[in-house]
Amino acid sequence: MLTGLAFFNGLLGDGEIANLLDTGADVRAMLRFEAALARAQAAAGMVDEKAAAAIESVCRRFVPDMEALTSATARDGVVVPELVRQLRHAVGEPHDRFIHLGATSQDVIDTAAALRLASVLDVFDSRLTSVLSQLDVLELRFGGNRLLARTRMQAAVSITVGDRLRAWKSPLQHLAVELPHQRERLLILTLAGAAGTSEKFGDKIFPVRQSMARDLGLFLPDYVPHTDRGRVADFAGFLSRLSGAFGKIGQDLALMVQNGIDAAEISGGGGSSAMPHKQNPVMAEILVALARYNATLLAGVHQALVHEQERSGSAWTLEWLLMPQMIEASGLSLRHGSALLSSVERFGDPA
Amino acid sequence: MLTGLAFFNGLLGDGEIANLLDTGADVRAMLRFEAALARAQAAAGMVDEKAAAAIESVCRRFVPDMEALTSATARDGVVVPELVRQLRHAVGEPHDRFIHLGATSQDVIDTAAALRLASVLDVFDSRLTSVLSQLDVLELRFGGNRLLARTRMQAAVSITVGDRLRAWKSPLQHLAVELPHQRERLLILTLAGAAGTSEKFGDKIFPVRQSMARDLGLFLPDYVPHTDRGRVADFAGFLSRLSGAFGKIGQDLALMVQNGIDAAEISGGGGSSAMPHKQNPVMAEILVALARYNATLLAGVHQALVHEQERSGSAWTLEWLLMPQMIEASGLSLRHGSALLSSVERFGDPA
Amino acid sequence: MLTGLAFFNGLLGDGEIANLLDTGADVRAMLRFEAALARAQAAAGMVDEKAAAAIESVCRRFVPDMEALTSATARDGVVVPELVRQLRHAVGEPHDRFIHLGATSQDVIDTAAALRLASVLDVFDSRLTSVLSQLDVLELRFGGNRLLARTRMQAAVSITVGDRLRAWKSPLQHLAVELPHQRERLLILTLAGAAGTSEKFGDKIFPVRQSMARDLGLFLPDYVPHTDRGRVADFAGFLSRLSGAFGKIGQDLALMVQNGIDAAEISGGGGSSAMPHKQNPVMAEILVALARYNATLLAGVHQALVHEQERSGSAWTLEWLLMPQMIEASGLSLRHGSALLSSVERFGDPA
Amino acid sequence: MLTGLAFFNGLLGDGEIANLLDTGADVRAMLRFEAALARAQAAAGMVDEKAAAAIESVCRRFVPDMEALTSATARDGVVVPELVRQLRHAVGEPHDRFIHLGATSQDVIDTAAALRLASVLDVFDSRLTSVLSQLDVLELRFGGNRLLARTRMQAAVSITVGDRLRAWKSPLQHLAVELPHQRERLLILTLAGAAGTSEKFGDKIFPVRQSMARDLGLFLPDYVPHTDRGRVADFAGFLSRLSGAFGKIGQDLALMVQNGIDAAEISGGGGSSAMPHKQNPVMAEILVALARYNATLLAGVHQALVHEQERSGSAWTLEWLLMPQMIEASGLSLRHGSALLSSVERFGDPA
Repeated sequence: MLTGLAFFNGLLGDGEIANLLDTGADVRAMLRFEAALARAQAAAGMVDEKAAAAIESVCRRFVPDMEALTSATARDGVVVPELVRQLRHAVGEPHDRFIHLGATSQDVIDTAAALRLASVLDVFDSRLTSVLSQLDVLELRFGGNRLLARTRMQAAVSITVGDRLRAWKSPLQHLAVELPHQRERLLILTLAGAAGTSEKFGDKIFPVRQSMARDLGLFLPDYVPHTDRGRVADFAGFLSRLSGAFGKIGQDLALMVQNGIDAAEISGGGGSSAMPHKQNPVMAEILVALARYNATLLAGVHQALVHEQERSGSAWTLEWLLMPQMIEASGLSLRHGSALLSSVERFGDPA
Repeated sequence: MLTGLAFFNGLLGDGEIANLLDTGADVRAMLRFEAALARAQAAAGMVDEKAAAAIESVCRRFVPDMEALTSATARDGVVVPELVRQLRHAVGEPHDRFIHLGATSQDVIDTAAALRLASVLDVFDSRLTSVLSQLDVLELRFGGNRLLARTRMQAAVSITVGDRLRAWKSPLQHLAVELPHQRERLLILTLAGAAGTSEKFGDKIFPVRQSMARDLGLFLPDYVPHTDRGRVADFAGFLSRLSGAFGKIGQDLALMVQNGIDAAEISGGGGSSAMPHKQNPVMAEILVALARYNATLLAGVHQALVHEQERSGSAWTLEWLLMPQMIEASGLSLRHGSALLSSVERFGDPA
Repeated sequence: MLTGLAFFNGLLGDGEIANLLDTGADVRAMLRFEAALARAQAAAGMVDEKAAAAIESVCRRFVPDMEALTSATARDGVVVPELVRQLRHAVGEPHDRFIHLGATSQDVIDTAAALRLASVLDVFDSRLTSVLSQLDVLELRFGGNRLLARTRMQAAVSITVGDRLRAWKSPLQHLAVELPHQRERLLILTLAGAAGTSEKFGDKIFPVRQSMARDLGLFLPDYVPHTDRGRVADFAGFLSRLSGAFGKIGQDLALMVQNGIDAAEISGGGGSSAMPHKQNPVMAEILVALARYNATLLAGVHQALVHEQERSGSAWTLEWLLMPQMIEASGLSLRHGSALLSSVERFGDPA
Repeated sequence: MLTGLAFFNGLLGDGEIANLLDTGADVRAMLRFEAALARAQAAAGMVDEKAAAAIESVCRRFVPDMEALTSATARDGVVVPELVRQLRHAVGEPHDRFIHLGATSQDVIDTAAALRLASVLDVFDSRLTSVLSQLDVLELRFGGNRLLARTRMQAAVSITVGDRLRAWKSPLQHLAVELPHQRERLLILTLAGAAGTSEKFGDKIFPVRQSMARDLGLFLPDYVPHTDRGRVADFAGFLSRLSGAFGKIGQDLALMVQNGIDAAEISGGGGSSAMPHKQNPVMAEILVALARYNATLLAGVHQALVHEQERSGSAWTLEWLLMPQMIEASGLSLRHGSALLSSVERFGDPA
């Protein structure tokens, strides 16, 4: 949730997205990484087959001691050292020394992020498709209606509702076309060891990476992704362009439903504690707020491009503070955008 | 918490501050507003004494139906209409019509924010005082040691640790001096009705405001604060300057403890999953991340200054999305800053 | 000018402010620093009286070799080493060795910035006073007119134009009250030597600073301002709140003059190349753009609070990239804000 | 230039890029638009052939009255109405009525921006290619040297200089691969008339667009680009990722050349006015400053995605205030990045 207040769960929280990013999902993804690593290393002859089987079996059902994870994370800055310690304890001798072999915290964390993002992007894809259909339906219902175009806030020439709808649709179509490319760049395996040189793997790094990528359903990058955060910054830009596209729709509708303008009508507007008669275009306003929110946070993700040396604790942490919020806000833009479009009752005037 | 992941509770969450801002605290503060309003209106003859007593009594023990609050907030964009509806129901006839009399959602929400901020600023004040003492203690322990000054990252002239400590202390002292002014500007009563004109109060607005402000321990502004968000933007700047001051300390220490520089030693550094021998300056890095985080979010709070007409749903919501995070991040800066200063074992070299 | 295009001189450039900040003004201010330093050091017995007189005399009429300044700045990152070299050459032996004695580039540059800001703040003060008068005049002309209040973009209750005007005035009055405090914090002498410890001055630093501050008409800070950039960040916040206040006015007027709303009329709206009949509320829109521009840049100034060690070349340069633009944009907000208020022909409806 | 100070021309200004964006280039590009429009409309039978020839001939040699352009822009918010007025006057009767036929200011301005960007992207392309070669040369010279990897600012394991160089190269290679895609999205013809509906063209819009696009060497978009600013926001992200990649290189080098670390040596460091012996890594620091600058400004370009109705004066102006600066800053990153890489004298230690 984007604020700490429970009653905002529906307005400013996107439960479905939040679930895909939450602690449970993250722990499951990290365990999938460790299991796949052991399996791939066994195939490559780096790890005993029995050890790999034991590790995999533990990873499948492991429930970490959250209290210990939390206090260790407060010390280590990352969750992985303690998670690995707990896993080793659970696996026990003699197989425990094969866990996390040659890997580093960032391998686990960045790969686990990719695994969770795969599900998030599925949801975005399906929501985007459905918003595009809604726009088609609106075009069918109202496309031929007349609308007074407004430039620089003033009445310009007469256009059709279809013209306005195409302007709303265009950025969303571009984003839908771009989504598969984001997928390829983001949903990658990270496996490069302490300083990005896979120094514990030797030549085995290539088969291990290939096998892990296949196993986890991730793309295999041809570069070491530890300090090259361009894909993260670019995805943050994608998210901000997504909420920006809905921000424009929201702003347009808020302007159209103004009393006195009345170029459209929407149902289900919010009530007021002081003026029971009012119908506030709440969803439209929230879309504007989310667009400005994501535009704001984007700057911080780009500050994190100054990622010094082989790993920057401060730049990486800055990403963690910003990306989940941006992702959930974008999910909300899609969800509220869809709700807002569904609520349009009238749009323009019959020709 | 600033991310959705539970194991970050200690590293990226400030439980004490989060509690002061959470749902329970907010609901309690909103109920204090409604009780104080009824009481003050009774004193001013606007509300029946019995009604005020009944309202006050209900507000003191009222536990809202959270599910209903949540779904109504998703529709109304604010929690107040439904909270008032529930309160009216709980008070029942004939007193229910005296609840929230002449007030608007923003009166309740902005005043409840001020009430919660009062406690937050107390915590900030006490943490700031204690950090300043820690700096004094460091000066006593290490102040006379020699340190190689560095300008533009390169060795400059020899200074003392005391010189460096004074540079760390200076911005914090300025913020400590500024804190009471922030208090006066922020901890204010908001009571102005639907469009800021107190149109349901007539001349009674003056005694009602005075009595409420006294009752709630808030300052009484000489302006209508609904759309003048300068104090919020200025407070956000204060918060960013606070985490910025700690960001400088963190950056300095991260540079000083570099292997090869070794101008200081800190204990309790974070461990690594790949290199057990390492001592990472995790707290120092987090302080840098928090400084960059707050600097980023600040821009959004200032975007919300474009607060159109008598109330902007989008600008106001944007504040809600940003301010709690900035406040918690600043609390974290104070807490981690204090921990980092406590961990300094060596600083400079004996003269 | 805020863009590189000459035809934007009037729309997006504030010539008066730009002049107060330009190369000539900067060089003059740096020469005033060097002259005042020599004078004060002579009074304190650090510098030969004749040398001080010679330095002062050269500084009064010195015209630097700009080409050499430019190429040296590209190498040194600051203009001062080459400027001092040229000055020394102009003064010649035996007095040349007394120039810039014990000072560092940052002393010159930050003090020269303060000297130029003194004039800028005078202009801001006078423009702010005149805008406040314009609002009083509007109140006299239209204050009693009726206006439909709008909250969340929807019609709320009836208010007066005076109510709206007071909401516009409130943040500007707060800024006018704050201006003298900004002056005290900003218009300070910086004199602290290479690493902020005045190591070349000994006890003479105190009389030298006092005498220079008096001479230059600057305040004398009780801290070393080299790395404590809080006052810069706070001033940037002031600037953003200033353009934010005008952004609200601009947004309100752009909404009020919408065809179909017609709650106000302004003269002199911009023309269109395609629709000659249109009257675009150009000034109102520019005010919104400037508010969002300054809100954006503010984040960068706060990033520069992470000012490492005794001097950060990157953080300091970041300030230079942002502050002149923010100052000019704020000057523009005041100028266009005044023009927009002058253009109001009708406001609300007679009661 | 990014600041108003002339002596920063070399340090904080990129003359080559600034020239490609300046007033002269813009006017030439706008005249090319008007000439190509008339030509294409003649081919489509909308404009008399003689008129088109006359318009083209005037556009080829026209020198606008800059004073009139400037004062009209201050009123209209855009330069086009006055430029068209002057052009009409220069062409005279009877052909003058065929100038700018069916077009709107945004068609001219956005297309002229695309035309100037074509040259800018050529420069970026060639600079990027040359930086990538420099990195190859560094790899040849130093690639086999040992380097102590540093993660979270602390010594990690031993790597080679080649490993570090590949980490620098990776984001730049990604950007080089992306550049042609940016080209396709950005270098487009905008021609859609007052409200984006080409209402003055009828079916002729298709041949006119095709012919103009071919004539101007621009891509022909399959959407109306007036309010869909995604490509601008995405390009701003590209620019910020570009300076971010150099910011990482600069930060790394500033850390490596620290006295006491001495993992590299660079020549030509900046001098100091107080400490003549120092060699400051000025270029490295500027790269960090430029990265943080562009990251900051990016947020504003994304705020401009909330581009209301058929044309937003405020959102569009906000782009103008930010994009030229971001483009020049990115050019500077490339130029200074190249200079910095050229200055590397030693890198790591022989194996």
